[in-house]
Amino acid sequence: MSTSTAYQNLCARHQRLHRLNHLQAIAGWDQSANMPPKGNEARSLALAEMGGLLHELATDPQLAGLLDAAEAEPLGEEERANLREMRRAWREANALPQALVEAKSLANSRCEHAWRSQRPANDWPGHLQNLREVVRLAREEAALLSESSGLSRYDALLDRYEPGMRSSEVDRVFGDLRQWLPGLIRAVQDKQSRETVIEPVGPFPQAAQRALGLAAMKLLGFDFEAGRLDESAHPFCGGVPEDVRLTTRYREDSFLPSLMGTIHETGHGRYEQGLRRDWLGQPIANARSMGLHESQSLSFEMQLGSHPAFARLLSPLVVQHLGDQPAFEPVNLQRLVTRVAPGFIRVDADEVTYPAHVILRYEIERPLIEGEIECEDIPALWDAKMQELLGLDTRGNYQDGCMQDVHWSAGLFGYFPCYTLGAMYAAQFFAAMRREMPDLDARIAAGELHLVFDWLRERIWTQGSRWTTPELVQRASGEALNPAHFKAHLQARYLG
Amino acid sequence: MSTSTAYQNLCARHQRLHRLNHLQAIAGWDQSANMPPKGNEARSLALAEMGGLLHELATDPQLAGLLDAAEAEPLGEEERANLREMRRAWREANALPQALVEAKSLANSRCEHAWRSQRPANDWPGHLQNLREVVRLAREEAALLSESSGLSRYDALLDRYEPGMRSSEVDRVFGDLRQWLPGLIRAVQDKQSRETVIEPVGPFPQAAQRALGLAAMKLLGFDFEAGRLDESAHPFCGGVPEDVRLTTRYREDSFLPSLMGTIHETGHGRYEQGLRRDWLGQPIANARSMGLHESQSLSFEMQLGSHPAFARLLSPLVVQHLGDQPAFEPVNLQRLVTRVAPGFIRVDADEVTYPAHVILRYEIERPLIEGEIECEDIPALWDAKMQELLGLDTRGNYQDGCMQDVHWSAGLFGYFPCYTLGAMYAAQFFAAMRREMPDLDARIAAGELHLVFDWLRERIWTQGSRWTTPELVQRASGEALNPAHFKAHLQARYLG
Repeated sequence: MSTSTAYQNLCARHQRLHRLNHLQAIAGWDQSANMPPKGNEARSLALAEMGGLLHELATDPQLAGLLDAAEAEPLGEEERANLREMRRAWREANALPQALVEAKSLANSRCEHAWRSQRPANDWPGHLQNLREVVRLAREEAALLSESSGLSRYDALLDRYEPGMRSSEVDRVFGDLRQWLPGLIRAVQDKQSRETVIEPVGPFPQAAQRALGLAAMKLLGFDFEAGRLDESAHPFCGGVPEDVRLTTRYREDSFLPSLMGTIHETGHGRYEQGLRRDWLGQPIANARSMGLHESQSLSFEMQLGSHPAFARLLSPLVVQHLGDQPAFEPVNLQRLVTRVAPGFIRVDADEVTYPAHVILRYEIERPLIEGEIECEDIPALWDAKMQELLGLDTRGNYQDGCMQDVHWSAGLFGYFPCYTLGAMYAAQFFAAMRREMPDLDARIAAGELHLVFDWLRERIWTQGSRWTTPELVQRASGEALNPAHFKAHLQARYLG
Repeated sequence: MSTSTAYQNLCARHQRLHRLNHLQAIAGWDQSANMPPKGNEARSLALAEMGGLLHELATDPQLAGLLDAAEAEPLGEEERANLREMRRAWREANALPQALVEAKSLANSRCEHAWRSQRPANDWPGHLQNLREVVRLAREEAALLSESSGLSRYDALLDRYEPGMRSSEVDRVFGDLRQWLPGLIRAVQDKQSRETVIEPVGPFPQAAQRALGLAAMKLLGFDFEAGRLDESAHPFCGGVPEDVRLTTRYREDSFLPSLMGTIHETGHGRYEQGLRRDWLGQPIANARSMGLHESQSLSFEMQLGSHPAFARLLSPLVVQHLGDQPAFEPVNLQRLVTRVAPGFIRVDADEVTYPAHVILRYEIERPLIEGEIECEDIPALWDAKMQELLGLDTRGNYQDGCMQDVHWSAGLFGYFPCYTLGAMYAAQFFAAMRREMPDLDARIAAGELHLVFDWLRERIWTQGSRWTTPELVQRASGEALNPAHFKAHLQARYLG
């Protein structure tokens, strides 16, 4: 193939974007993990300058013609999938006028900045004033994205995080979930109220926790020649596929948050490390979606990390690094990581109650974006749904209610469903693994974790963005997204 | 002033370069301090992509006209100095055709890569083959830079590192130095042979050494809200003025190399931290020269760090972090850091013999670039000059002789003088301080280090690139570069 085809021209441009994005990713990670406070202004200006440059490259007027010309070229199946993703990236970059992008950035920053002090002050009226403008612009954005994609407004937002996923599908699976979840939560609480759990006795020195986290990452196959573990205020998986930067944070009075958080980020990290090397630099190489990404972190943290057999592998590492105590016995360790208790705060929620937090947000943000409700309606809906799903009273408690997340303040609508879609994908993948390997649980107990990693590598990691999300799930697990697997997983683990 | 002037257009372009260079600087630091091995290929490609982009911006054909138009605009004195530095940067970026830049890059990489194994094998004939091509291209580069700058060939190379410095001036000061240095070295050795020095007893754990290094940086006024200390194989001062990244390395059997190295890098770091904030982003804000930069690191490491009064401030910190032992008494500590012994290796040399290594290299690289000698002549010249200056026999010992440095392999000609110019500037600055503050040494002993920092801030750091190097030295110290101060410093410290 000559190097002058439109397709190859596009590939060269994406290669360039990939390389420049590499610097953004590392500088962004450094900003969270290393940067001293006085470096922030210069760093933010540098990242913004590069952001503008990347936007210029992604909206080059020549791209429209190149994309059309490439469609007419003789391409293989993978190249065609890559071209689909190129067009998708181009459509997203071009859908919004610069004035809207800037207005959004301004309104979101203002709302988020004020929210940081309004939340502790429980100041809903103050927050509402800013949120109205954020929602107004998010609706405008949704309308424009809807126009360019042909999707409904909310679906156009959702599609950015979960390509191919539609709210009709989310309605179907979340509708099922909300039927049985409240009853299941009550049953689990009832069962657990009769169990004894021994609390670990701290303090747990930070250096020992770090060594334990590294040992867990090693057990989980993280490639330290292609990544690192550092610290940041808000843990995340950053860097680039060739050099994955995980972060965690430590509390000396408690080691499980950091350990389980590190296991969670390791799942994200192995997804990135497992992306196809020969595709890297092209859109087809990228991780498929936010929900799929979350499915990998939850495969590690929940499916595997909170598995009773895994507790037997983890327990000796905990003892080695933190010393021996009764709380570190495998059975107790697993009880500690599977405690279920309804609470106000999503980010503190356990595996069983977490989906309730997500359903609630989805049921509010979708009509909010579609214009069926207004910002003023949020608190009453929140209170009713918290009562219905978790039996908690949040009336008047905005700071632990509808003001608790940064997402809406920051204009992120359409993201919340990914958390629970990820949990469902993960349960469905493990169900598929068990169908193919009926002795999987015994072999996990025997330490043969590579069976899990090999399956995920073959079905998910190396597939990148080769397929849309629903196609990928179908091909990996043999069926469309099916919430029955998540239900079965929770029942087996928590009521079995 | 309207934003449409040519000068302001140029300022906006330099602001942009400054911001994009920020990402290069942080990613480059990360490559040395953090990056796992498998990240290297992607990082190198990302840095090269950005390097190409920065080169494009720096050679935009519109710049020539803008620079000419700005010359005709009514500008203040600082703006005119900034414009002078803009033109200088533009001239350097445009002086070399892309083909030469690429050929140099290839030849230098090849030579340096082979040198890594040729040096331990003492393989001069093998090295010579590659070095010939490196020198051929360096001469071509020097000829082109000479044409665009109007300077002699070697001066055109020197001017990139030490703007305004000429080899006639270097000849004058090095010519003086080489008259008295060999005799001074012998006299110091004779004196020191009658002194007792107690060797420290290790090991010195890395964490304790790191804490000691941080304490020394604090004592020296490093701003940790605008910088960090990390580790790398080859210590350096990187990052950006707003966020200075120093590195060091640790050997558990010896703490002084890391401690004194950290003090050295702290001098570089405070220069960067002390640059004018209101100028940042413009060429006038940049540190003036390599020699001036070295003058600051040597002001910290040698003038201050090896000062007998400073040893009294450092000693309690050493005891605090490494435990008490007789070797840590102030008098002994200062003796340890001021041992003088001629040796083969420049980077291991003490303050007194170091200039001999530099003079030798200067006296070889200048005629080499001017075409007066050839690569084949290097070993004989090296042997003769080592005998003459340091009384050492290097015949046949290429690996500890003319093959020891990376500079020539990497095509860096014109850089070596900066090391000793820096030592001379530092001595001259401290002589000026003592004229203005006759009780300076007593006040250093009393811990009033801010007197030194305030002087350097006012005369050097905040001056950025406002003046050429000779102008800056004249303004700071009241006279042109004068090697008598360096001589007086060495005599007072080592023979006093």
